[in-house]
Amino acid sequence: MRFSGLSAFPITPMDAEGRVDRPALRRLVARLREAGVDSVGLLGSTGSYPYLTREERRRALDAALDEAGGRVPILVGIGALRTDEAVRLAQDARSAGAAAGLLAAMSYTPLTDDEVFAHCAAVARESGLPLCLYDNPSTTHFRFGPALVGRLSRVPGIVAVKSPGQPPQAVAGHLAELRAAVPPGFSLGTSGDWLATEGLIAGVEAWYSVVAGLFPQPALAILRAVQAGDTAEARRLDARLEPLWALFREHSSLRVIYACANLLDLTEAVPPRPILPLGADVRARVAEVIRALGLG
Amino acid sequence: MRFSGLSAFPITPMDAEGRVDRPALRRLVARLREAGVDSVGLLGSTGSYPYLTREERRRALDAALDEAGGRVPILVGIGALRTDEAVRLAQDARSAGAAAGLLAAMSYTPLTDDEVFAHCAAVARESGLPLCLYDNPSTTHFRFGPALVGRLSRVPGIVAVKSPGQPPQAVAGHLAELRAAVPPGFSLGTSGDWLATEGLIAGVEAWYSVVAGLFPQPALAILRAVQAGDTAEARRLDARLEPLWALFREHSSLRVIYACANLLDLTEAVPPRPILPLGADVRARVAEVIRALGLG
Repeated sequence: MRFSGLSAFPITPMDAEGRVDRPALRRLVARLREAGVDSVGLLGSTGSYPYLTREERRRALDAALDEAGGRVPILVGIGALRTDEAVRLAQDARSAGAAAGLLAAMSYTPLTDDEVFAHCAAVARESGLPLCLYDNPSTTHFRFGPALVGRLSRVPGIVAVKSPGQPPQAVAGHLAELRAAVPPGFSLGTSGDWLATEGLIAGVEAWYSVVAGLFPQPALAILRAVQAGDTAEARRLDARLEPLWALFREHSSLRVIYACANLLDLTEAVPPRPILPLGADVRARVAEVIRALGLG
Repeated sequence: MRFSGLSAFPITPMDAEGRVDRPALRRLVARLREAGVDSVGLLGSTGSYPYLTREERRRALDAALDEAGGRVPILVGIGALRTDEAVRLAQDARSAGAAAGLLAAMSYTPLTDDEVFAHCAAVARESGLPLCLYDNPSTTHFRFGPALVGRLSRVPGIVAVKSPGQPPQAVAGHLAELRAAVPPGFSLGTSGDWLATEGLIAGVEAWYSVVAGLFPQPALAILRAVQAGDTAEARRLDARLEPLWALFREHSSLRVIYACANLLDLTEAVPPRPILPLGADVRARVAEVIRALGLG
């Protein structure tokens, strides 16, 4: 797969015991395939990968691959606390037919750069699965600095990085620092939906998006505007979504997007405990916002 | 068990696949029983609990309980990302015969106070195991504030908190804040070995100690000096250990204590990957320090 354009990250609907609701997941993947996203980011942080067993992660992947039908590549989260477990998940993903793996530096004991290097290199080497590094300090508490990304970008099979969204004033500098550290062809991408538009305008190649996992059209519209060189239109479309971004920032995109999926009657699933669904008052605000935006 | 005095936290020796080396674990527990610590803190952060399967955690607990032979109570880590998994681990611990459970707020998606409250209350209610809350922001990235500890201290079965070590100038204030939030009899304890002496002097009731998991005597000597009211002697004994504390701060107590256990020929086990053993140069420094302290 090419690590460019819009990668849409759906939730993974599951029951209270952590068993994946495959029909509901297929409905979500079908929406993304039909909308024409560039890839599906299955079992990302929004897909609650750390809360699922290896077996359930495989069940989710099989269902998503079947629904995608080869028409949209699937990037799948293979992060785990243990290196051997991450290797097994990457091997599972490769044999199931995933296009690539998304590898976060999950941690409990805080990790050093050398430890994360060895971890990622082992997963790449022992799985043969193309890998996108997943830099998500807000959940993993590890930050991939440019020097480490540079070292890892020389490891065969490690081909991309998904960085956290940068504040507008930092985005160009962050991109330049990474660009200087990696070989040509290594893909630089961003997450953090409310910061993504400025990242795309600055030249980031891929947008790993939570909102697109449920609402692909408004994200695609922003991406297309940037690709057409119409930055004013991209910024206008982004600004229009600000009420949703505000909810994401305040309550986390994961909790908000679960509420949205419930409101759309796509699934009754709630996040895995201990994560709680939003309370009735916030859900009512979410409903108002998506109605006002013409999304629900 | 009473949550007071010295709780000694050993490593959990295991092979590269995460299978517990029970003879080596028994040797470590035997040292602690013979030294007369007040409790053993099995499967704490030093015991790498998040890196072990439920089955291996049960195997470790069974071996430790058998070795303890009822002569020293065992407090066991039951933390997990999922609430239902933490409940199962607590139920396992209770049925195996652990005296209490140590419950950290492990997180991936950052958690709210209400979520951690519901998580801990569910584990207490559904297991019937006495619980010590485990406040370890450096690994879990969640901080138990006094208000949350106060709420949880009213939940039947939640009887203690293990707080991170506080800098000397903050220790009295931290203790007073917690004391004001909890009912009489709720135990306040500290970790962070290099900060524990001042905590004990300030009135903390329990020291949850990494160093004591391998070297119980020097920790017991500090505790006894504090209990005898000889704060000068406690501080002298603590200051003597400063070269070890410096290594703990620089390389993490977990990595250093593994190196010590290897040097003492108690086990050849290394930390679970991705955590790497210390390099040869640091191991040489560790060897010098424990020799100079008369510990190895």
